[in-house]
Amino acid sequence: MTQNLRTWLLGTVAIVVAGVVVGRLFLGEPEIAAPAITPAEAKGYFGLLPAVADNPQNPVTPEKVELGKALFFEPRLSKSGFIACASCHHLASGGGDGLATSIGHRWQVGGRNAPTVLNAALHVAQFWDGGAADVEEQAGKPISNPGGMASSETLVLKRLRTIPAYPERFRAAFPDDAEPLSYANVARAIAAFERTLITPGRLDRFLAGDATALSPDEHAGLDKFIAVGCTGCHNGAALGGGSFQKFGVVRAPEGLADPGRFEVTKNEADRSVFKVPSLRNIALTAPYFHDGSVWTLEEAVQIMADTQLGTKLSLADADSIATFLASLNADPPLTVTLPQLPASTATTPRPEPN
Amino acid sequence: MTQNLRTWLLGTVAIVVAGVVVGRLFLGEPEIAAPAITPAEAKGYFGLLPAVADNPQNPVTPEKVELGKALFFEPRLSKSGFIACASCHHLASGGGDGLATSIGHRWQVGGRNAPTVLNAALHVAQFWDGGAADVEEQAGKPISNPGGMASSETLVLKRLRTIPAYPERFRAAFPDDAEPLSYANVARAIAAFERTLITPGRLDRFLAGDATALSPDEHAGLDKFIAVGCTGCHNGAALGGGSFQKFGVVRAPEGLADPGRFEVTKNEADRSVFKVPSLRNIALTAPYFHDGSVWTLEEAVQIMADTQLGTKLSLADADSIATFLASLNADPPLTVTLPQLPASTATTPRPEPN
Repeated sequence: MTQNLRTWLLGTVAIVVAGVVVGRLFLGEPEIAAPAITPAEAKGYFGLLPAVADNPQNPVTPEKVELGKALFFEPRLSKSGFIACASCHHLASGGGDGLATSIGHRWQVGGRNAPTVLNAALHVAQFWDGGAADVEEQAGKPISNPGGMASSETLVLKRLRTIPAYPERFRAAFPDDAEPLSYANVARAIAAFERTLITPGRLDRFLAGDATALSPDEHAGLDKFIAVGCTGCHNGAALGGGSFQKFGVVRAPEGLADPGRFEVTKNEADRSVFKVPSLRNIALTAPYFHDGSVWTLEEAVQIMADTQLGTKLSLADADSIATFLASLNADPPLTVTLPQLPASTATTPRPEPN
Repeated sequence: MTQNLRTWLLGTVAIVVAGVVVGRLFLGEPEIAAPAITPAEAKGYFGLLPAVADNPQNPVTPEKVELGKALFFEPRLSKSGFIACASCHHLASGGGDGLATSIGHRWQVGGRNAPTVLNAALHVAQFWDGGAADVEEQAGKPISNPGGMASSETLVLKRLRTIPAYPERFRAAFPDDAEPLSYANVARAIAAFERTLITPGRLDRFLAGDATALSPDEHAGLDKFIAVGCTGCHNGAALGGGSFQKFGVVRAPEGLADPGRFEVTKNEADRSVFKVPSLRNIALTAPYFHDGSVWTLEEAVQIMADTQLGTKLSLADADSIATFLASLNADPPLTVTLPQLPASTATTPRPEPN
């Protein structure tokens, strides 16, 4: 080997090593290689969405859904008359509120991010900590939460009973009930409306056999989503919502103060445990996590891969997975026609903004 | 005349007088007698609503209206990300907010009642004090009002420019503008949407010649409305909105502190002067007056008759007029399909709740 050749070889090796080092420094982790999944294979991870998330204990009927929609948009359910369910669950914005944590009565800033109501009826439980078994149990709680809508069962019933259209509509929605206008039925009607907020997207067309329903980039993202192991938790028709998991299975996230499901169960094993959120419409519902602390999907994906799966994802891989996730937006877009709410009467308790 | 007959007559007279006195005490003023007006005669007081309140300076186009609707429901126009135009102008509740005075950024309670946006584009000016010439001038003001949405031109433009769908939609809505995404065009787009919020009702079918479009009670109320003189101010297609009047033409109302239009003109003659509100959908937009101090339509009618026309109306007459006014509700009811708002990006300035 000549001196020239040795110099040339060493130089080349040095350049390659430097390139790899610089590449790692600037570009992050290498990309994940993943085989292309077929619709039939993908069905093993995900399920098809039902048209409606019906509940035999609270059957979805047109009367109940229309009443529930009115109540969902009804600010008179709040003490102030300013806040409705729809104030923190914008049906124009993916069913969340776009804030880190929600704003309640007298501008109290809450502790957790408003989860989307879209497809929520499919979840194993409600709230980030599973503090309600189903949407029927959930829907009444923010209404009477002092930091939420700050109302009470008494005030809600007095407001609704003095607006003649409401007792009439409750009778039509709950014809077999001795007392149709009850606080439980307020929640049941809202829940029935929420049970109709099911938003299929392009993934569902892919699962149904149309391999072109996802773009090549989205398909590549789906492949990575599976290869990385995201489907361990984000599976089923809602891509999540089916289980509780510790935030930090592999590695504890920085600065996690929220005790999570421990607050509900008082079981030490449930500390830092949260319901796995659905990824349906996730690209529309930033910021992310129970505390809304992360504002981009790419960063959320990287944190999840790191804390839950022990995988350092390159930005390119996180971008690719985020591209797939954006294909989970409702398609066709959600169509909601605003209800028209009946007027108060002279005896309806007035708004109490203070 | 026998003693018996005299006693009987005196007794009868005493009973009748007592009856009238007691009747006045308990039932109030005697009812107004009014001839039944025909559709053709009624057209002399009212006008037919246009399908759209178009403006040659800001033509109503589908692209502009769809963009304006999105912006009307867009909470990211507010500093906090919590308040949209729609927060105080509920299109589910007659276009107002049902509060005495509105709630703004950080729960500041404002000084005036939120006027309905329905048919507002037909008014001679905007705001209770006429502080804006038209909806184009009006729409941007609550967005930057520190007590309203507390945003700024800079923040609004930065938010919208970093959400790719918006620059694109502004270009489509304002194709001839060198700078389509401007603060003025935010207001113009919202205004164009508002120009479509025109709500005909049964009165319009009556005016068009269908004498049965109003029920006999509503027709009787209309007759009294005219006989009492309400049409002196509440005339035209919007039954109001066409002029400014002193609150207390005949008699000053109690405790009126608001300087009204004086705040805009600094002209002493404009003290206690307000824009006459439209009566369209008035039964849906309690409470009443610039300060939302009156909660029933009957009471509002009695106060107006007293302070503006010097007439003490019986409760029966006020009820009758209120019955007519309820016929001014949108019929068919307003139909608004919620827009679907585009997602923020990594560079979109975040909500600032504090």
